[in-house]
Amino acid sequence: MRTLIHRQSQKAGLPPGSLVRVGEEKAEKVKITVIDYKDEHFEQREIERVEDCLDFKDKPTVTWINVDGVHDTETVRRLGECYQVHPLTLEDILNTEHRPKMEDFGHYIFITLKMLGLSPNGQGITVEQVSLVVGQGFVISFQEATGDVFDPVRERIRRASGRMRSREADYLAYALIDAVIDEYFVILESLGEEIEGLEDELVTDPGQGVLESIFKLRREMVVLRRSIWPLREAISALEKSESGLISQGTRVFLRDLYDHTISVVDTVETFREMLAALLDLYLSGVSNKMNQVMKVLTVVATIFIPLTFIAGIYGMNFENMPELKWSWGYFAVWLIMAAIAGLMLLAFRRKKWL
Amino acid sequence: MRTLIHRQSQKAGLPPGSLVRVGEEKAEKVKITVIDYKDEHFEQREIERVEDCLDFKDKPTVTWINVDGVHDTETVRRLGECYQVHPLTLEDILNTEHRPKMEDFGHYIFITLKMLGLSPNGQGITVEQVSLVVGQGFVISFQEATGDVFDPVRERIRRASGRMRSREADYLAYALIDAVIDEYFVILESLGEEIEGLEDELVTDPGQGVLESIFKLRREMVVLRRSIWPLREAISALEKSESGLISQGTRVFLRDLYDHTISVVDTVETFREMLAALLDLYLSGVSNKMNQVMKVLTVVATIFIPLTFIAGIYGMNFENMPELKWSWGYFAVWLIMAAIAGLMLLAFRRKKWL
Amino acid sequence: MRTLIHRQSQKAGLPPGSLVRVGEEKAEKVKITVIDYKDEHFEQREIERVEDCLDFKDKPTVTWINVDGVHDTETVRRLGECYQVHPLTLEDILNTEHRPKMEDFGHYIFITLKMLGLSPNGQGITVEQVSLVVGQGFVISFQEATGDVFDPVRERIRRASGRMRSREADYLAYALIDAVIDEYFVILESLGEEIEGLEDELVTDPGQGVLESIFKLRREMVVLRRSIWPLREAISALEKSESGLISQGTRVFLRDLYDHTISVVDTVETFREMLAALLDLYLSGVSNKMNQVMKVLTVVATIFIPLTFIAGIYGMNFENMPELKWSWGYFAVWLIMAAIAGLMLLAFRRKKWL
Amino acid sequence: MRTLIHRQSQKAGLPPGSLVRVGEEKAEKVKITVIDYKDEHFEQREIERVEDCLDFKDKPTVTWINVDGVHDTETVRRLGECYQVHPLTLEDILNTEHRPKMEDFGHYIFITLKMLGLSPNGQGITVEQVSLVVGQGFVISFQEATGDVFDPVRERIRRASGRMRSREADYLAYALIDAVIDEYFVILESLGEEIEGLEDELVTDPGQGVLESIFKLRREMVVLRRSIWPLREAISALEKSESGLISQGTRVFLRDLYDHTISVVDTVETFREMLAALLDLYLSGVSNKMNQVMKVLTVVATIFIPLTFIAGIYGMNFENMPELKWSWGYFAVWLIMAAIAGLMLLAFRRKKWL
Amino acid sequence: MRTLIHRQSQKAGLPPGSLVRVGEEKAEKVKITVIDYKDEHFEQREIERVEDCLDFKDKPTVTWINVDGVHDTETVRRLGECYQVHPLTLEDILNTEHRPKMEDFGHYIFITLKMLGLSPNGQGITVEQVSLVVGQGFVISFQEATGDVFDPVRERIRRASGRMRSREADYLAYALIDAVIDEYFVILESLGEEIEGLEDELVTDPGQGVLESIFKLRREMVVLRRSIWPLREAISALEKSESGLISQGTRVFLRDLYDHTISVVDTVETFREMLAALLDLYLSGVSNKMNQVMKVLTVVATIFIPLTFIAGIYGMNFENMPELKWSWGYFAVWLIMAAIAGLMLLAFRRKKWL
Repeated sequence: MRTLIHRQSQKAGLPPGSLVRVGEEKAEKVKITVIDYKDEHFEQREIERVEDCLDFKDKPTVTWINVDGVHDTETVRRLGECYQVHPLTLEDILNTEHRPKMEDFGHYIFITLKMLGLSPNGQGITVEQVSLVVGQGFVISFQEATGDVFDPVRERIRRASGRMRSREADYLAYALIDAVIDEYFVILESLGEEIEGLEDELVTDPGQGVLESIFKLRREMVVLRRSIWPLREAISALEKSESGLISQGTRVFLRDLYDHTISVVDTVETFREMLAALLDLYLSGVSNKMNQVMKVLTVVATIFIPLTFIAGIYGMNFENMPELKWSWGYFAVWLIMAAIAGLMLLAFRRKKWL
Repeated sequence: MRTLIHRQSQKAGLPPGSLVRVGEEKAEKVKITVIDYKDEHFEQREIERVEDCLDFKDKPTVTWINVDGVHDTETVRRLGECYQVHPLTLEDILNTEHRPKMEDFGHYIFITLKMLGLSPNGQGITVEQVSLVVGQGFVISFQEATGDVFDPVRERIRRASGRMRSREADYLAYALIDAVIDEYFVILESLGEEIEGLEDELVTDPGQGVLESIFKLRREMVVLRRSIWPLREAISALEKSESGLISQGTRVFLRDLYDHTISVVDTVETFREMLAALLDLYLSGVSNKMNQVMKVLTVVATIFIPLTFIAGIYGMNFENMPELKWSWGYFAVWLIMAAIAGLMLLAFRRKKWL
Repeated sequence: MRTLIHRQSQKAGLPPGSLVRVGEEKAEKVKITVIDYKDEHFEQREIERVEDCLDFKDKPTVTWINVDGVHDTETVRRLGECYQVHPLTLEDILNTEHRPKMEDFGHYIFITLKMLGLSPNGQGITVEQVSLVVGQGFVISFQEATGDVFDPVRERIRRASGRMRSREADYLAYALIDAVIDEYFVILESLGEEIEGLEDELVTDPGQGVLESIFKLRREMVVLRRSIWPLREAISALEKSESGLISQGTRVFLRDLYDHTISVVDTVETFREMLAALLDLYLSGVSNKMNQVMKVLTVVATIFIPLTFIAGIYGMNFENMPELKWSWGYFAVWLIMAAIAGLMLLAFRRKKWL
Repeated sequence: MRTLIHRQSQKAGLPPGSLVRVGEEKAEKVKITVIDYKDEHFEQREIERVEDCLDFKDKPTVTWINVDGVHDTETVRRLGECYQVHPLTLEDILNTEHRPKMEDFGHYIFITLKMLGLSPNGQGITVEQVSLVVGQGFVISFQEATGDVFDPVRERIRRASGRMRSREADYLAYALIDAVIDEYFVILESLGEEIEGLEDELVTDPGQGVLESIFKLRREMVVLRRSIWPLREAISALEKSESGLISQGTRVFLRDLYDHTISVVDTVETFREMLAALLDLYLSGVSNKMNQVMKVLTVVATIFIPLTFIAGIYGMNFENMPELKWSWGYFAVWLIMAAIAGLMLLAFRRKKWL
Repeated sequence: MRTLIHRQSQKAGLPPGSLVRVGEEKAEKVKITVIDYKDEHFEQREIERVEDCLDFKDKPTVTWINVDGVHDTETVRRLGECYQVHPLTLEDILNTEHRPKMEDFGHYIFITLKMLGLSPNGQGITVEQVSLVVGQGFVISFQEATGDVFDPVRERIRRASGRMRSREADYLAYALIDAVIDEYFVILESLGEEIEGLEDELVTDPGQGVLESIFKLRREMVVLRRSIWPLREAISALEKSESGLISQGTRVFLRDLYDHTISVVDTVETFREMLAALLDLYLSGVSNKMNQVMKVLTVVATIFIPLTFIAGIYGMNFENMPELKWSWGYFAVWLIMAAIAGLMLLAFRRKKWL
């Protein structure tokens, strides 16, 4: 189970900008891949030493440096130095518990957001942090682990399909964020199916399991909201930012991205409402069932308790009990009992308990 | 049952502006109808090839191109090319899961909204997306399926009734949106009647069915809200937009439209409150009934359990039980029992349990 | 019972500005009364033909045309024509289901609001729409039925008391709205008394009737809110409007009016909270009562069930039951039973069940 | 008990600015006290005729006219005339049901707020209205009854302690409002103690009384909020007002006052949350107790009902019942019964019902 | 247990700016420590007389005066005089019940916030007030008790590590606030662990203790929110303040601080939601258990009550009961009883009660 709160406390007392890794360890080895492209030019290289990145700096091409794994603070620090990244930004990159945000540092824009995935065992949502540093002619992306969510973007650059090659770094950043948000829809769909499955289960066989599923989903909604709400603001800020790094042409796409985020937020809210409705429905169902059980008990007990009392009366051993000697006494008692039971059943039917 | 979340995930990884159809398939064949009018001029034609639309371009008349069915991406793409529609707009048109919005692209305004209808079997609400591209002298409308909601508008154009023929494309767009929103009132009325029916049922015969109806309606409210809330903003943005495509005369009508939307939103909120009240009323009713059942059980059991105990006592077979030999013992027991029962009934009556 | 949603659907498909009556029919015959006044001048006339109104136009006096009954669309249309009222305004006047609003059309201001009243049988609130068209030197007021809420205003004009005669049409409009809002306090007082009555009833004799009263009041609060919330905005817009039709002197009074509306809104919110608290109190009361019932059942059953079991044991007919032959057996059983009952009572008392 | 809604309806139909007293009668006789001071000058006088106030007008000193009792409309009207107070302000002064507000009339500022107190019998909160008219060189304060909340201010003026004597009328107004708000903390403290008392009671002996106390407090919170929320806005408006009557030096103090109000609002919200939590805790406690009761009943009944059945079997009088003749039959039955009871107890223990 | 409301009432009636200590007493003796530094210069001294502070005034170095214990109003007053601090600020410093805020007095900025800690016995959260007066070249910090939260800052100054020595007073203020907020994460982590512990407990052994823990945590959330919500605004105001005391370089760090505060607020909200979900889960669990108990009772009672009745019948002592004489009567009764029990079990199984 994903813990909602992590050890940020280990940083208490350190000076700001101290590069300390906060969050779970996810990758084994830091892997740095550089893709450099422009119009006809295309080059992809996996580099070993951080300083090799400098080869691509100050060239008119677009350079995309992708870092898989942020647990090696040294790598991040040196990369940050190469590209004049502010220590506070590096701190945020290393702290994978950070909420999504966008910050404009003048010569670069920093964006951090959450990549969501379904955990392999289908038991919930995995959350991974993706950070982007977008500058003039370069994008540096940081992922917690090696993932394949950016593969389609890589593919589009390689094949020179779409607008990719002719656009600047801002468009690349957009494409990367878009790739992450596209994944959200996959998650939402899976959750939507789970909710609808629950709805069906609630009708056919509502058990304790339904309750636990509702609460598991509710918890996941909390995680989703935390990841998505601040993202909305971040993308809106990105679209409206006055930074010269974002071209007018890319803003149209960012507006589209904003629409997608709103759509995700909307869906999460809808899911929350549906879960609330499901919980109410479940609880009313339980309470209705309880009432039914109680009615059966009441009807059976209310009919038989007086009859048993009568039987008890004539089971007494008094020497002087005249009725016992009447030859038709036994049958009379049966008649009386039948009459009592009949009247009671009638009363219950009139009260709609049967 | 309408699924709340559809396959948007198939788009994950594709470049933005990729024309992929998202949503349910509703129409069989794409049908394109063109109506061209101005003052005395009127022409209506069903066209086969998208390029035929170009005949009407750049004429001083108002051209209304209505497309029934958006599942043929090719048609949409070519139509978009004819009228210089941005790929992102085309993407939104094809994605029928989009939330209502209004976007100003300078040379055209894009509006997408939801057309609501009652499903033929009376089992809920159908949601269909309507998209409008409003430019200088033309309106392109996209519907998911052939519907008759625009027929009155068509009729008004044909008959040259009202202001239709003398106004520009913006008025046509207004008339189309107005036609869609007018349908909302039909839906609301039907839902209102259903809610009031539920209210009556709750008084006369509150069963599990009421509960399920409440939840069905609640679910429909969720669908309605999702369709209508963003529409409010969209129409407000349309009215306040600084686009030269919207004339001052049309803005008065858009303000009226906005009032209608507010009215719809208000009613949906009122319905939600009423459903919440109905649910509370139902649950209190159930709980009250339960209490009544419990009281009957308690009264009957509490009276007869002690009496049965007494009868049990004198049913014991001890050889030495003096009371058994008293000739008036049996009658004394009856008297004692009657006294106990009487006192208990009195106590219950004082506690208002009877 | 007032139906919350009316037939607005009959308008679906009609062109905007179509004069169709929406709402319940309330008056039998349309009655038009004209009051014309200024300083010393005063004239009151009931007119038959709409065109007679034109006599008062373009005079320096203030003309108040009061129309009782809006079901005759022809009258409204002709009156509108005389005073150059926009078709959309006329549509709003005829649609008595409209939410309160204020609209500035330049040469006149349109205000529509709800007049609330207690229904004659004391069974709820009646809602009637009042529309005002305020222009230079004239006010046209539309009521659904002949009412007496404007009588004090009429009286003040006739007697030339207060500022009435020396002020312009805007002050008259203010006086009319003020008269309507004053009525709200009467309603609130009556509802307040009802709520406090409920509170007392809840203490003395909480039955199912209380629950139904709570829900009736809750429903009325929904109606009230729908009528009053938008009014607040409308009056605020009126006070802050830049229209030259509202003089500075009148704005002070409008601010006062706004205060009254806020006060009404406040009270409605307070009532809602109190009703919620009453419902909670009622439900806790019911559940407490239930617990008391359960405790009695449990105590009685728990004490007598084991005793009855013991009696049953010695009622068995085994031939070899040594206890039955002991001469003090019967009395020993009584002792044992008393001990068991005593211990149980003690245990219950310690658990505070008694 | 304070009634939440008072007779404002008696004003319906009267022209605006009509001086009609609305609210409860609290004082017997109107008492007017004038304090006139400046630097070294100090004069205190109780006056009989309203016109005597004019002596102090147009002097460079600060004049504080305190009116105890607002039920004599004539006094208020004449005082208002002396100082050119607008009729609407006078109306608001007389209507002690008014919500707190601040209004700037140019030559004076009108502030009305609620003075809260604990009712003498400790049974709730008393609400009294205080109105201030702050002009150039004078403050007129209106109280509903003779109170001692302003005594410390009087004392400070007399003793010339603090900044009092050297400041203008605006500082006096601030000091008066501050005196009123200081009283709020006394109330909050008393309520806070009551809530914490309830918390303790809930742990030791949760009875129906707790429930009623919670609801009494909840009701008082409604009263408090109604008095305090609008005050916040009023003081904020006062601090930010552009009126020349408020000097820069006083604004710092008003900001401090605003902080106090926020603090009061905060505390009220905290109390509301705590009361909600207490209610939840109480209800869960009740429901837990109920469950315990049910479990005892279930365990006792479930064990003894089958045993009693067995006893009943061997109490039957069939002639041919072989077991009855077995000499060890009786003891075997005891054994079987013990076994059944033991197994059941074991099962219950495993289900954690015991 | 920390009392939520303290004696602020003792101040009622005092003039504003009166230096009265409000809050709990926490320290024994006031301790004043001065650290004076700049680039290479470093001096730390504990001073006895307040006036010694003046030595450091008007020097180009940064002076940090730390006051542990605010219960000695005289010390605070004299220190305030030395540095021209407004009496209202001093009042706020002494009132440790103040909500976090930031106020700009021109020549200094006043910030007050809450330092949170875990109480030594692990039984809740301790709240302590920290106030900062930030001026040109000096920071005065007030703590309620001697704490070690500022030790890391002291250490960094001494060691001249990080940016500390080269920056101005504003950076020192930032570092101090940062140190306080870093502590919040420690608290949140501890609370997070407690909540997750509760979650586990709820699954394994949900008892009354869980309920009390939920309410204890809920109460702590109220305390946390009260401390943190206003802090967010205060830090935002600090970052955006136009005061010349805050340099551009420090603003970047304040923005980072603001991010941390948002993150804390977020987490508190998440915890609140999780607690609400836990409460719901607990209550549903209790109600489910109750249902199970009821079902067992119902099944046992419903099966055995009719059987006991039959046994009671043949325990009657009528002389004429033909069945008693049939030699197979006893066995027939057993058969009938078995059949009844079997049918009932079947019915229950079909109703899924077993």
